[in-house]
Amino acid sequence: MHIRVINPNTTAGMTTTIGEAASRIAAPGTRITARNPAHGPVSIESHFDEAISMVGVLEEVLAGEREDADAYVIACFGDPGLLAARELTRAPVIGIAEAAFHMATLISTRFSIVTTLARTGIIAEHLLDQYGFAHHCRRVRAAEIPVLDLEENGDAALSRLIEECKRARDEDDIGAIVLGCGGMADLTDEISQAVGLPVVEGVTAAIKLAEALVGLGLGTSKHGDLAFPRPKPFTGRFEGFSQLIPIR
Amino acid sequence: MHIRVINPNTTAGMTTTIGEAASRIAAPGTRITARNPAHGPVSIESHFDEAISMVGVLEEVLAGEREDADAYVIACFGDPGLLAARELTRAPVIGIAEAAFHMATLISTRFSIVTTLARTGIIAEHLLDQYGFAHHCRRVRAAEIPVLDLEENGDAALSRLIEECKRARDEDDIGAIVLGCGGMADLTDEISQAVGLPVVEGVTAAIKLAEALVGLGLGTSKHGDLAFPRPKPFTGRFEGFSQLIPIR
Amino acid sequence: MHIRVINPNTTAGMTTTIGEAASRIAAPGTRITARNPAHGPVSIESHFDEAISMVGVLEEVLAGEREDADAYVIACFGDPGLLAARELTRAPVIGIAEAAFHMATLISTRFSIVTTLARTGIIAEHLLDQYGFAHHCRRVRAAEIPVLDLEENGDAALSRLIEECKRARDEDDIGAIVLGCGGMADLTDEISQAVGLPVVEGVTAAIKLAEALVGLGLGTSKHGDLAFPRPKPFTGRFEGFSQLIPIR
Amino acid sequence: MHIRVINPNTTAGMTTTIGEAASRIAAPGTRITARNPAHGPVSIESHFDEAISMVGVLEEVLAGEREDADAYVIACFGDPGLLAARELTRAPVIGIAEAAFHMATLISTRFSIVTTLARTGIIAEHLLDQYGFAHHCRRVRAAEIPVLDLEENGDAALSRLIEECKRARDEDDIGAIVLGCGGMADLTDEISQAVGLPVVEGVTAAIKLAEALVGLGLGTSKHGDLAFPRPKPFTGRFEGFSQLIPIR
Amino acid sequence: MHIRVINPNTTAGMTTTIGEAASRIAAPGTRITARNPAHGPVSIESHFDEAISMVGVLEEVLAGEREDADAYVIACFGDPGLLAARELTRAPVIGIAEAAFHMATLISTRFSIVTTLARTGIIAEHLLDQYGFAHHCRRVRAAEIPVLDLEENGDAALSRLIEECKRARDEDDIGAIVLGCGGMADLTDEISQAVGLPVVEGVTAAIKLAEALVGLGLGTSKHGDLAFPRPKPFTGRFEGFSQLIPIR
Amino acid sequence: MHIRVINPNTTAGMTTTIGEAASRIAAPGTRITARNPAHGPVSIESHFDEAISMVGVLEEVLAGEREDADAYVIACFGDPGLLAARELTRAPVIGIAEAAFHMATLISTRFSIVTTLARTGIIAEHLLDQYGFAHHCRRVRAAEIPVLDLEENGDAALSRLIEECKRARDEDDIGAIVLGCGGMADLTDEISQAVGLPVVEGVTAAIKLAEALVGLGLGTSKHGDLAFPRPKPFTGRFEGFSQLIPIR
Repeated sequence: MHIRVINPNTTAGMTTTIGEAASRIAAPGTRITARNPAHGPVSIESHFDEAISMVGVLEEVLAGEREDADAYVIACFGDPGLLAARELTRAPVIGIAEAAFHMATLISTRFSIVTTLARTGIIAEHLLDQYGFAHHCRRVRAAEIPVLDLEENGDAALSRLIEECKRARDEDDIGAIVLGCGGMADLTDEISQAVGLPVVEGVTAAIKLAEALVGLGLGTSKHGDLAFPRPKPFTGRFEGFSQLIPIR
Repeated sequence: MHIRVINPNTTAGMTTTIGEAASRIAAPGTRITARNPAHGPVSIESHFDEAISMVGVLEEVLAGEREDADAYVIACFGDPGLLAARELTRAPVIGIAEAAFHMATLISTRFSIVTTLARTGIIAEHLLDQYGFAHHCRRVRAAEIPVLDLEENGDAALSRLIEECKRARDEDDIGAIVLGCGGMADLTDEISQAVGLPVVEGVTAAIKLAEALVGLGLGTSKHGDLAFPRPKPFTGRFEGFSQLIPIR
Repeated sequence: MHIRVINPNTTAGMTTTIGEAASRIAAPGTRITARNPAHGPVSIESHFDEAISMVGVLEEVLAGEREDADAYVIACFGDPGLLAARELTRAPVIGIAEAAFHMATLISTRFSIVTTLARTGIIAEHLLDQYGFAHHCRRVRAAEIPVLDLEENGDAALSRLIEECKRARDEDDIGAIVLGCGGMADLTDEISQAVGLPVVEGVTAAIKLAEALVGLGLGTSKHGDLAFPRPKPFTGRFEGFSQLIPIR
Repeated sequence: MHIRVINPNTTAGMTTTIGEAASRIAAPGTRITARNPAHGPVSIESHFDEAISMVGVLEEVLAGEREDADAYVIACFGDPGLLAARELTRAPVIGIAEAAFHMATLISTRFSIVTTLARTGIIAEHLLDQYGFAHHCRRVRAAEIPVLDLEENGDAALSRLIEECKRARDEDDIGAIVLGCGGMADLTDEISQAVGLPVVEGVTAAIKLAEALVGLGLGTSKHGDLAFPRPKPFTGRFEGFSQLIPIR
Repeated sequence: MHIRVINPNTTAGMTTTIGEAASRIAAPGTRITARNPAHGPVSIESHFDEAISMVGVLEEVLAGEREDADAYVIACFGDPGLLAARELTRAPVIGIAEAAFHMATLISTRFSIVTTLARTGIIAEHLLDQYGFAHHCRRVRAAEIPVLDLEENGDAALSRLIEECKRARDEDDIGAIVLGCGGMADLTDEISQAVGLPVVEGVTAAIKLAEALVGLGLGTSKHGDLAFPRPKPFTGRFEGFSQLIPIR
Repeated sequence: MHIRVINPNTTAGMTTTIGEAASRIAAPGTRITARNPAHGPVSIESHFDEAISMVGVLEEVLAGEREDADAYVIACFGDPGLLAARELTRAPVIGIAEAAFHMATLISTRFSIVTTLARTGIIAEHLLDQYGFAHHCRRVRAAEIPVLDLEENGDAALSRLIEECKRARDEDDIGAIVLGCGGMADLTDEISQAVGLPVVEGVTAAIKLAEALVGLGLGTSKHGDLAFPRPKPFTGRFEGFSQLIPIR
């Protein structure tokens, strides 16, 4: 099984971190290929960053189709371009926010999210509403760490995250914590041990959900509103998307 | 990995069907043990049947704990005793209704449920509300097949199910169908081929979710409201539950 | 009118307390019979306790049917087995949680719940959602009193309850308080006087709702999903439930 | 116990009908006084009619306070002036729509409403939302009968109502029907017998809820947002409301 | 364009304040006529005050119809009589609470309300629910200023409001503040400058929405449940409403 | 006042249609500049088309900032890039879907949407949920007209739209219809006359809302989660977005 993990930002170091975390958790027969777009923001911390990143995400899905990927993971906690990506393939496509939410509800009745910057909280809130998990999340908390600090300033970031997770544990009446950034994929164990309750991280959760769906023979439905896009002209720099024909 | 699949009713034939479907879908390293309680209803088609079945489900979880089960699947579409079962173990416990709902939302934006008898529809509605998936389900449909007809009257039941699934496909504006009974675990492929859109079945979905959680090192949170029950006396026929001490 | 009050736990002292509170509030023509199962937990403080208690609740409803009960009250704040019990009879069946919620919304716009242990809060939350009262409840508070302390350690428990109710009054922007345990049935007046706002207790509320429904000639609908269960074999220790035929 | 039943419209014949239905259902010790305002619409079939009727409803509550009423029933299915009325008294005040909704959820999992004119459906929808019962109501149906036809054209109205109730029974997947007009208070038995499932009518339901609350010693909370209005000048024709002081 | 602004209370000074704020914001071609009823409460601070005020609001709409008003604004934050007023005219009718909510959601993802007295908070909560904005409002805050203090005690009231708005800014995770009283129509600029984030005030918002709807040629739908009321007799002091015939 | 109308697709003819409709409705002092991106899909009929179109929308907002636009309208019914666009400017940004929803709720209690292709219905459903209008919309209907048919095949498209709108009027229990595509901006009058109830179209509605906000001195909040994006490097073809500094 070939799972293509797409880091929507263009920071190669983070792609490596994410890819390694994905590989560690993958089943024996699973091959992980981690990619990031050549074009886009170095980190995603706003609606704007997220909107621009979608183009790269979608191009990487199309690339994955040519390389026979069996499933896709979008490794940014806002799940940018998720439904658009699903339209492009018969394979399953999993966002790491949704993956973490699904898993958290299977092991606890209520969870809190600990994310990077407060301004991204609204993205999580909108996803919780759309996916149906708003009731299961007690609180969206921010550790006020810029995303790239997770790479560049790892120790301080980890301390800050652990501190906020402990607050969630003590104040929020929860059973589990969801980590709100793909760049935290390698910190799960340390945080979980320090905090003492289950910590759900999206990249790893998404890998296992992707394996699960492929194992079940289930892929994105092509009946109804996730069918392949109608082929049509695109202009200018996006001309390459014109007359998009599904490969398989 | 050892997954204990608990069929909450006492019909051994259905336990075999469910166990075989589970084994077929399981990963190479996964061992399935399918059990049903000695005590309880031969099928579950009402709140009453469901309430009585919970005792057996919980006894089977305790038995599983003694046999080092790594995860549990409750194989009845009402997810009877799910939260109670979670209290008894550090292992993950998955209900087949929730499993099917989770998987269906990953491959479609909207789904319908096709279940056995209309009177069980309310059970599915309550679960959709509690789990957060009410918005993702367009309609709960009943094929009006008693549960045991799936065993005893298989061909007629299959035709009836396919017919109702086709109606769902044509009328409900959906991308996927969820089968609403554990006894349909071996019919998924035939129905899916006949109907032409993804059909999600809970037993198989639950096995893959259980494997995923075990793979992630995630189990039921023992922090907060799913902690082990406080040990206490039980009287009469339930005396055996007194002073319940977690094994691990 | 004969109202059967079922205490789902097996502590006879609590059954007496509940029965006396019920009798005090009952109308002149109402006869109260309070019962508890012979088999089950001595108190209900978890999903597990609740699941096991359901068997006893349902057996007591069947016993009540043989003794011509006109209505049933399930006197545990989780309303264990409520819908199953309704399937067994044409008489009305009232849970004390729902009773308290209904009454509280008739005299205030918003209320808080003060219950025993924090871990049972999730049970109240799920009921509020299912019944439709989530918006009317500002907060679920726990006094952190084990249920049997209400019997064995009455004075300390009462002080603790009053303290938590005062916090609810001062912090929660509410008009009324709901007491979250059947074992508090005899404390309502003292708490209400100490706290100075209406205190709604479920056992007493349920008695009056049961009288109201019987007075209206309304009983559990046998049309649709609360119809009598389809008769079927039960195995083992539950064989007695086989071929259940409605008495009236 | 003295229950003041207020018919918000000014049609005395309907007040009589409502009062008689209330008296028939009342407990032996309950005295019913039925009143309608001198000023207002002869029937209530719009937001406008409802808004004007509130003045009369509130004047009748103040009159009831002088006559020691123990509880109030507002006998129009839009519950006009309900929260305002509650502010004026320590006694309980019950609207017939809320009363019927509460009772219907105690005997069924889902109900439909059969009301008079389609244009009043939105009033019921808004109440269902505010009270929390939107999920329990499958459908609001109109028999397209003007309110006064219930008085003047009784037989035709009754046939039309029975016809619509039968449709609700056969098409709506429900266990009970709620009648959506105070003027139907005397038709419940006939409709229920013709339709064959429980029919809940608001006037009678409200009487029993009022008796229940008085029996419990519960009245409108004067803590928080239902406290007596701050006394203040009113001008012109409403000068009489100036400096309103609670009598008890 | 002629916009009739109706102050539902009878304090002429507040009508002047509101009218002046409306005139300042109005487009060049817009004529504002501000009116208050002759009959009613001098301020609106309860459900009771609001219910009584509706009669005057509706009479002023009828007066406006005779004077060819092109749109109406109801200038009290509870939007008293809004749907009833819409029934009386083809022109658009805007409540200041709804106007402020609409505008606040267009410039921020989440807002808080700062209103006068805590007891009116429930009115705002009910409107947020009915209009669909409950999710967009983080918190309803009260400055605990009686409405008329805005007129009589302006400086102290302004300081208190600014203080509460700063708390909202610092504690509520919001992007905008909604002022919860028509009497604050002239304070918006000062508060906004002091607090440093957008402050939305309902009177001014409603004028611009009214202009917008008139510009679009859109008025209250006369198809369905906002059609003109069916003409009918009104008795007593409300006889003047009998046989109400739309003027245009 | 300068309103920049951005047609997110690259079909210049549609931009002209939209710009003309905007100019016709604009107030005397309002200058409309209609633009479409050079790069992107010729029409937007899927999540994929929408995701790609966002880049162009955001570039046009940045261009508008250099040309002193006072407000922006995003003229595609999925409101693509709305929150991202708001981050880039202090000016108000209005999506045509939200604009139409807001206006429709001010003139009716319930509306239906008539859109182009069924597959885009889910986009409208997600927006209704996020904005809070799900309860106000009875039904999302598709006329099954590809977007460009509105340009190329106008008469047939118009007939088809009128037909579907009449069905909405007759079957949906509504007071108004919302047109679900920017390309219908010039058809509103014809449809409204043919159907006989208010028809709300988003481009025109958005122009008036933009004028209203500018008139109120309200722009996108820069406090909280719609603040300007943190400046950061973008790579490759999006390098131009690096170190984005707000112009004003």
